[in-house]
Amino acid sequence: MRLAQLAKLIQAQCTAAPDINVVGVASLLKADSQHISFFSNSALQAQLNKTQAAAVIIKPEQQHLSPVPCLLMADPYLGYGRCMNVFYSPPKPVAFIHPTAWLNPNARIGKNVYIGAKAVVGAANIHDGVYIGEACVISDGVVLGAGSRLLKNVTLMNDVCVGQDAIIHPGAVIGADGFALANDHGQWLKIPQIGTVIIGNQVEIGANTTIDRGALDNTVIEDGVKLDNQIQIAHNVHIGQHTAIAACVGIAGSTRVGAYCTIGGGVGMVGHIEVVDNVHITGGSVVLQSILEAGVYSSGSPLQKNRLWRKNYSHMKNITQMAKDLKTLKESPLNPASSPLNQKDSL
Amino acid sequence: MRLAQLAKLIQAQCTAAPDINVVGVASLLKADSQHISFFSNSALQAQLNKTQAAAVIIKPEQQHLSPVPCLLMADPYLGYGRCMNVFYSPPKPVAFIHPTAWLNPNARIGKNVYIGAKAVVGAANIHDGVYIGEACVISDGVVLGAGSRLLKNVTLMNDVCVGQDAIIHPGAVIGADGFALANDHGQWLKIPQIGTVIIGNQVEIGANTTIDRGALDNTVIEDGVKLDNQIQIAHNVHIGQHTAIAACVGIAGSTRVGAYCTIGGGVGMVGHIEVVDNVHITGGSVVLQSILEAGVYSSGSPLQKNRLWRKNYSHMKNITQMAKDLKTLKESPLNPASSPLNQKDSL
Amino acid sequence: MRLAQLAKLIQAQCTAAPDINVVGVASLLKADSQHISFFSNSALQAQLNKTQAAAVIIKPEQQHLSPVPCLLMADPYLGYGRCMNVFYSPPKPVAFIHPTAWLNPNARIGKNVYIGAKAVVGAANIHDGVYIGEACVISDGVVLGAGSRLLKNVTLMNDVCVGQDAIIHPGAVIGADGFALANDHGQWLKIPQIGTVIIGNQVEIGANTTIDRGALDNTVIEDGVKLDNQIQIAHNVHIGQHTAIAACVGIAGSTRVGAYCTIGGGVGMVGHIEVVDNVHITGGSVVLQSILEAGVYSSGSPLQKNRLWRKNYSHMKNITQMAKDLKTLKESPLNPASSPLNQKDSL
Repeated sequence: MRLAQLAKLIQAQCTAAPDINVVGVASLLKADSQHISFFSNSALQAQLNKTQAAAVIIKPEQQHLSPVPCLLMADPYLGYGRCMNVFYSPPKPVAFIHPTAWLNPNARIGKNVYIGAKAVVGAANIHDGVYIGEACVISDGVVLGAGSRLLKNVTLMNDVCVGQDAIIHPGAVIGADGFALANDHGQWLKIPQIGTVIIGNQVEIGANTTIDRGALDNTVIEDGVKLDNQIQIAHNVHIGQHTAIAACVGIAGSTRVGAYCTIGGGVGMVGHIEVVDNVHITGGSVVLQSILEAGVYSSGSPLQKNRLWRKNYSHMKNITQMAKDLKTLKESPLNPASSPLNQKDSL
Repeated sequence: MRLAQLAKLIQAQCTAAPDINVVGVASLLKADSQHISFFSNSALQAQLNKTQAAAVIIKPEQQHLSPVPCLLMADPYLGYGRCMNVFYSPPKPVAFIHPTAWLNPNARIGKNVYIGAKAVVGAANIHDGVYIGEACVISDGVVLGAGSRLLKNVTLMNDVCVGQDAIIHPGAVIGADGFALANDHGQWLKIPQIGTVIIGNQVEIGANTTIDRGALDNTVIEDGVKLDNQIQIAHNVHIGQHTAIAACVGIAGSTRVGAYCTIGGGVGMVGHIEVVDNVHITGGSVVLQSILEAGVYSSGSPLQKNRLWRKNYSHMKNITQMAKDLKTLKESPLNPASSPLNQKDSL
Repeated sequence: MRLAQLAKLIQAQCTAAPDINVVGVASLLKADSQHISFFSNSALQAQLNKTQAAAVIIKPEQQHLSPVPCLLMADPYLGYGRCMNVFYSPPKPVAFIHPTAWLNPNARIGKNVYIGAKAVVGAANIHDGVYIGEACVISDGVVLGAGSRLLKNVTLMNDVCVGQDAIIHPGAVIGADGFALANDHGQWLKIPQIGTVIIGNQVEIGANTTIDRGALDNTVIEDGVKLDNQIQIAHNVHIGQHTAIAACVGIAGSTRVGAYCTIGGGVGMVGHIEVVDNVHITGGSVVLQSILEAGVYSSGSPLQKNRLWRKNYSHMKNITQMAKDLKTLKESPLNPASSPLNQKDSL
């Protein structure tokens, strides 16, 4: 592909060499004269100086830093993302059913559907262009929207509904029972879960992520939500559109997370709370109450050398007493701030 | 089913309309005139006002709040759970072995056992009424007690023993090696694990949960334990009966958790500690020492706006110095509490 | 095996009974007269007193505590590990391909390779002595080094490269896409991931652990790294040799962890940081910045009774104000430490 043609596709401005041929994308140091690279992190200036790339996607105001032709964009990382999609989008599936796959005779299979080795497809409704990789298990009543891609070894339980162009990575389990127990004189009574999981369009679900089915109503993942690996979404959670959640997050039952949020890795949220739109929570935080105002939120205590942490740890237990002592001292008549008699000049 | 008949089954008192017909359970707003609903959360009063349900399970003292007939119970959530079991218990399996399943010729298969597509069953002992869903892998030497249900894609390693009426959700891995390493001059020597996992009756194990086999002796999960999704139970852990553990909990090796405990989501516990019976740990806590007294325990720091948290974060590192400074001030001769000379009336 | 022969194999000194026969290893209380046991935890003195073992591996200076013959070693736990490998190493696989496995005709299969029931092997390069358990999915382009063991239900995505003698436990997913998104006017653009995962020799990977493929370059796990269950390793992470990581750890993208580190359970690390060699991080810590000095590090707040924690929790929010107040008091003219006028003797 000519550089000028690529610039047009990614909506960048080409500064030079519009006719050179580019065949792919590489990092600054690994790119050769047929690769595009990008510069969005100033810490990589030394790498930029050495790059052999055909061209570099860069902010207009940093153009002078580049030793090679530039594709100018306000957000070079977005430009990089667009280039990757130009060169490396997965091919559209062609109609293929592996002889070792097993399909329920009542399964409805659209056009250009790929079903890999050892896959099991129940009485499900599989729309056009769906890719079902090796060893996936698709249960009865599932709906897979057009263009969805289930990589290998994905498990969808009964009646789970997936929108168009979803991507689900290996080991994900969608639609297992929510964790619902009633206490009956000290023993736990399991409560059957009759809701399901409704997943919108363009949703991505990471490896070994679990999304439980609803108790009575449904668990809902709206359009454009992106979930990383090893996330746990409990029953009746509702995630608003275009929210992105990093790995190892756990969200307890019936919590509602708004749209356009970002949740950092390892965050935990209790159940039955509400997080409004445009909330950003940094990694490792624990959310015990609703967040009703957009903004950036954090919790957690600082990493320290173990020896110091052990000391601080013991004092953290006493912070209530420290606060009381401090209050007493502040209010003491000898504190100049609390008593007019105790000014310096009165001594 | 007649309402009076249902009331009897769930041990509730029917206040009206004993002869109306009910066919299922729904949430307050979705219930129609053939559905039961329940009211156990006062925040849903507005929904109760609008409900079209045939009847509502409710506490006797809240009976006047309901616009429809009532089933009176001290614990409406328990009543809801019982109703769900009346209407939605999974059917008992009938004898069926899918032609694509593979069974070791030495497998012992009881009566009314269901084995789904692509399942692999080694030389295991499968008791009556067991359900083994699609793509499950049951290794040699496994014992599955009567009535156990392994949903799809469950992996049981050699010699794992599961009691009666267990439920194991997809992606769970029971009996993988414990993480056992001896340090041999900087390199790690893997230590083979020859114990197994012993699981009691009526245990539930969530999706993608892992329970490691014991090193020499066994990992033990007692009767009635309920484990949510994505839990990690290390080798030689012992969980006492009727303890319930929420998602994303990790328990390190050889720790003993007592009976009738509840462990909130995301809790971490170090190894080789003991937690006595009737301990309740709130979500996100980290347990670094034994808990030898029943009660409710917590750790964690508050969620804050990121800007404030950053400030507080730096001060948390200095809390030991703050405590020292405070002590010095308290003990100063000018502190009225520490010195008789410094009383207000002496000024 | 004669005791003296075992002593030689594990490099211990046999104090007595060199000719007795030993057949295996057991814990102190379960060992009978043909079992070896070990004593490395002083808390088990009462068990040592009662042991019926043929011999006990023990430190030379504790030899007098043992009621039975001793195998003396400075590190009895290492001796135990060596014994376990003597008696319980898995047998080397013999050539076997289960009739229900499916192999791509272009797969290259070495000598003495075992492929279990329902396994799927793409156009991969499988070296000698590899064990591929039931229901594993090995994608095109994968390389499995000699002697590697993939227990059941492991998923390796395209082009993942595994060194010699690796062990990968069930449910692990290696080489799924990294979580890479560019924000395009509020919506997320998925960025294809064209790197892979390179895994060294003697690496162990736990059940349900996920290791993502690199974005442009590779994710790298060096020789001798040991990963427990349910770990998440993001794209382009680099783990140095002989580092051991306990369960439930999450490491975000592009972070480099050095060699000979130990990372406790449940630790979280943000992306794009560096942790040098010989760093040890205790369980439950959150790492938000690079660690550039070897040592032991921790974070986290103390577990407390819930009632006390609630009080302390509110004060933790105000620690910045507390620090300011404390500074004001310290600098007050009435504080003897801050003002020469306010010395005790001036009163």
